[in-house]
Amino acid sequence: MNDHPSLTLATFAAQLDFDSIPTEVVERTVNLYVDWLGSALAGKGARPVETIARFARLAGAANGNGPSEVLIDRTRTTPYFAAMINGAASHFAEQDDVHNGSVFHPATVVFPVALALAQARRASGREFIAAAVAGYEVGIRIGEFLGRSHYKVFHTTGTVGTVAAAATAGRLLGLSPAQMLDAFGSAGTQASGLWEFLRAAADSKQLHTAMAAANGLMAAQLAADGFKGATHILEGAQGMAAGMSSDADPARLTDRLGSRWATAETSFKYHAACRHTHPAADALLSVVQTHRLAPREIAKVVAHVHQGAIDVLGPVVTPRTVHQAKFNMGTVLGLVAHHGYAGVTEFEQGFDASEIAAFRDKVTMALDAEVDGAYPARWIGKVTVTTNDGRVFAGRVDEPKGDPGNTLSRDEIATKLHRLAAFSGAASEAEAAQLLGTAWQVAGQPQLGSVFGASAKAAVAA
Amino acid sequence: MNDHPSLTLATFAAQLDFDSIPTEVVERTVNLYVDWLGSALAGKGARPVETIARFARLAGAANGNGPSEVLIDRTRTTPYFAAMINGAASHFAEQDDVHNGSVFHPATVVFPVALALAQARRASGREFIAAAVAGYEVGIRIGEFLGRSHYKVFHTTGTVGTVAAAATAGRLLGLSPAQMLDAFGSAGTQASGLWEFLRAAADSKQLHTAMAAANGLMAAQLAADGFKGATHILEGAQGMAAGMSSDADPARLTDRLGSRWATAETSFKYHAACRHTHPAADALLSVVQTHRLAPREIAKVVAHVHQGAIDVLGPVVTPRTVHQAKFNMGTVLGLVAHHGYAGVTEFEQGFDASEIAAFRDKVTMALDAEVDGAYPARWIGKVTVTTNDGRVFAGRVDEPKGDPGNTLSRDEIATKLHRLAAFSGAASEAEAAQLLGTAWQVAGQPQLGSVFGASAKAAVAA
Repeated sequence: MNDHPSLTLATFAAQLDFDSIPTEVVERTVNLYVDWLGSALAGKGARPVETIARFARLAGAANGNGPSEVLIDRTRTTPYFAAMINGAASHFAEQDDVHNGSVFHPATVVFPVALALAQARRASGREFIAAAVAGYEVGIRIGEFLGRSHYKVFHTTGTVGTVAAAATAGRLLGLSPAQMLDAFGSAGTQASGLWEFLRAAADSKQLHTAMAAANGLMAAQLAADGFKGATHILEGAQGMAAGMSSDADPARLTDRLGSRWATAETSFKYHAACRHTHPAADALLSVVQTHRLAPREIAKVVAHVHQGAIDVLGPVVTPRTVHQAKFNMGTVLGLVAHHGYAGVTEFEQGFDASEIAAFRDKVTMALDAEVDGAYPARWIGKVTVTTNDGRVFAGRVDEPKGDPGNTLSRDEIATKLHRLAAFSGAASEAEAAQLLGTAWQVAGQPQLGSVFGASAKAAVAA
Repeated sequence: MNDHPSLTLATFAAQLDFDSIPTEVVERTVNLYVDWLGSALAGKGARPVETIARFARLAGAANGNGPSEVLIDRTRTTPYFAAMINGAASHFAEQDDVHNGSVFHPATVVFPVALALAQARRASGREFIAAAVAGYEVGIRIGEFLGRSHYKVFHTTGTVGTVAAAATAGRLLGLSPAQMLDAFGSAGTQASGLWEFLRAAADSKQLHTAMAAANGLMAAQLAADGFKGATHILEGAQGMAAGMSSDADPARLTDRLGSRWATAETSFKYHAACRHTHPAADALLSVVQTHRLAPREIAKVVAHVHQGAIDVLGPVVTPRTVHQAKFNMGTVLGLVAHHGYAGVTEFEQGFDASEIAAFRDKVTMALDAEVDGAYPARWIGKVTVTTNDGRVFAGRVDEPKGDPGNTLSRDEIATKLHRLAAFSGAASEAEAAQLLGTAWQVAGQPQLGSVFGASAKAAVAA
C-alpha cells in the first residue's frame, strides 16, 4: 500500500502512544473531558435528546444491561447506543468545545465513543486519553482539509465527526494502520449533516452528533472484524472532498503530525451559544463594562464578523426556540448586555423577554475584511456601539474567552459543570462534586470505571 | 406551512392510499417484492453482509427477540436491526432492481424497512404495498431531482435511499404530512454514500444500503415521536441539492404525483452485475447469437456507453474480487460471450478464469453521443464486435432485459429466486417454493406474517 495522506493520518491515529503526548496536552485533554461531561449532563431532559434516547431503547438499547454508561439517566447499554445517546446529549446546550481553525466541535463526537468503548474494554485512563487525542488530531485536520466551502453547507461536526469518532474507537480497539484506514473509509462514506435544519428550528444537530459518534464507532468495530473501507476516502476522486468541498487542501491532513498538537488549540465555550457569536459578545461586554453602559442607553450595535458567521447566523431572524436563539446574534448580545453572560439559564429564562427582543432589533452583522481574513485560524471580535445620545464606541477582543490564549481554569470548568448539572438536574451538587473528583484523575485510572461513582473509585483503589 | 416541493412530496407519501394505486402497479410492486426476497436471500454467507450482521448483534440486535425477521438467518430482532441487516444483504449479489432515470436501486432500501415495520405493526398486505410504493415514488423522484452530477460522486441508493426508506417507514407508522416532512428532514440530513470505495474493492456498498434502510426507519420513528426535521431538506439553500448536486431540478420532485407511477418504471436485473453493463451485455448477446460467434473468434469489442458507465466502471481495470468484477465491463461481456448469462454462479466460479480475463482485455468502452443523450431515461445498448477474420458487427438493444418494456415474468422471477437461494444456501428448494407461494399473495394478507412460513399462513387463514 503506497503512502498517501489518508494512510499517513490513519497510521498516526493507530500508533499514537500516550507517552508521546506532551504532559500539557494530556492535562488539556483531561480539561476537555471534564468540560464535555458537563455538556453531556446538560442534555438531560432536552426534548431532542430524550427522543433519541427513546428511539435507542426501541431499537435495542433497552434489551439487557451493557457495559457503557448513559450519562443523562445512568443506565447502561452497548457502546453503540451509549455513544449515540451521549453524543446527542453533549451538543445540546451549545457549551461543548470547538476548534477554531476547523470549525469543528471535537468533544461531542470523540468523548462519547472514548468513554463507551473504554468502559466496555476496561481500558486504562492512558488508553482513554490517547484515543481521545487521536480523535481530536484526526478530526481537526480533516476539518481544516475540507475548508470553508464545506462548512457553508455541511455541519462539520456531523461529517468530519464521523471519522474523528472512528479514529478514537479504532485506537481503543487496537486497530492496525490498515484496519484504521478501513475504519476511516467506512466512517467517511457515512459522513453526513446539512445546515438546512437551522432555518426551521429543527432538531437535527442532536441527530448529527449522535450518529457521528455511533457511525464512527460502528466503522471501527466493522474494521476490527475485517470489513474493508475505501483507502482514499478523504482525498480520492470520489471521496469526501470531491463530493463535499471545493477548496480542499490535502496538505492539511498531515500537518505536523506528532509535533503540532491540535487538541490543545481547542477552545472552551464560555457562553452557551453558537461559537460564531462569542467574539462579538466578548467585544460588546468589554465596551459595556469599560464605559458602564446600561442596555437601555444603547441605540445600535454593529457586529463586525467573518462570512461564516453570516452564513450560519444569518438565516435566524426571529428566534422561536432557545436553540434558534443561540444562533441569533442579537439575542446573544442582548443577554450579554443585560446579564454579562449568555449561559443556559439566561437563555432558558429570557431569550424571548421583551427587553432582549428589543435589544435584538438594534443589532446587525457586517462582514469585516480583517475579521474574515483572520478566520478561521483566529476568531477576532469587533463591535461598534452607538448610544442614544450619539456616542460611538469600538470594542475589540483578539481571543474570546475560552480560546487557547484565554483558556478556562479548572475552577472555571468545574463551576461550568456544576451550573450545567444543576440546570438539567442530571446530578446533585454533591454528585457533581464527586464526579469531578474522579474525572480530574482520569489519566491515572488503571481501568476506566463509572463516571458516577463506585466502580470508578474501586478501580482506582485496585 | 407554505406549499413547496418537499412538502408536496411528503404529503403524497403520507396520504398514499392502496386503493388509489392502479392494479397493474400493485402487481408490479408484488413482483418487485418477490424479486427483492431473492436478492435478500442471496446475501447469506457473504462476508460484508455477515460482518454487518455480527456488528448488529454486538450493538444490541441479539438482546432478546424482536418482531422483525432477518432473512439470512431467520432470527428476529427489532425493526431497526432487521432493516439494517436485510438492507445489507439484498444489494450484495447485484441482482436487485434499479430505476433507470434516477439510477437508484429502490428495493434494497425500501423493502427491508417495509417488511420489518409491517411485521412489527402487524400491518396488512395493502398497507405494506402502499408503503413500498410511497418509498419508490419518493426515492425515484429525489434521484431524478439530484441529477447526474450527484451520481458522479455519490451512491444514490445510499443518499436518496435514506429518504425513500423514511417515506416507507413513515407511511407504515401513519405519519401526518407534517411528520412525514420531519422524517424527510432527519433522513436527508443523514444521507451519505461515496463511490470512492469501488476503487479499493471495499465493502461500503453493503454499508450504504444497510444504513440507508436503518437511518430512514430511524428518521420516521423519530418523527412519530415529535423530532423535528428541516422542512426544505431537498431543495433548501443548505439542503441535499445545495451540498451534493450542481444540476438539481426541483420540478422533478413533484413530477405527476399520483398519475405517473414511477414504481412501475423500475427494471429487474437479469445479469448479476452493475446495471451499467447490462445494455452492452444484451447487445453483445444479440450479436453472438445472431451470428453464432464463439468467444475465441472475437478480436475486439467496443461498448458504446453513456458517461455514467465510464464514471462508475472506469476505475475497475483488473478486478480482484467477484464484487469488483461486477463493475468491470470486460468481465461481464466475457461471461456473457461464454455462458450467455452473467449470473451469481458464473461470477463466483469464473470471473478470473483465464479465458474470461483474456476476453476482458479485448473490451473497451467508448462514450456514445446517442446513448449518452438518451440516458438516464433510456439505457440503450450498443456494441461493435470485430472478429479475428476482420468482420465487423454492430449490436443494439433499445431495452435491456428486465426493463419495463422487456420485463421479467413471474416465472422468470421465481426461477431467479430459486437460483439465488440455492447459490447462498439461504433456503432449500422446498422452502423457496413455499416462501414464493406466500409472497405472491402478499397484497391480500390481512396481517403480514413470517416470510418463511407458519405465522404468515396462519395470518392468511385468520
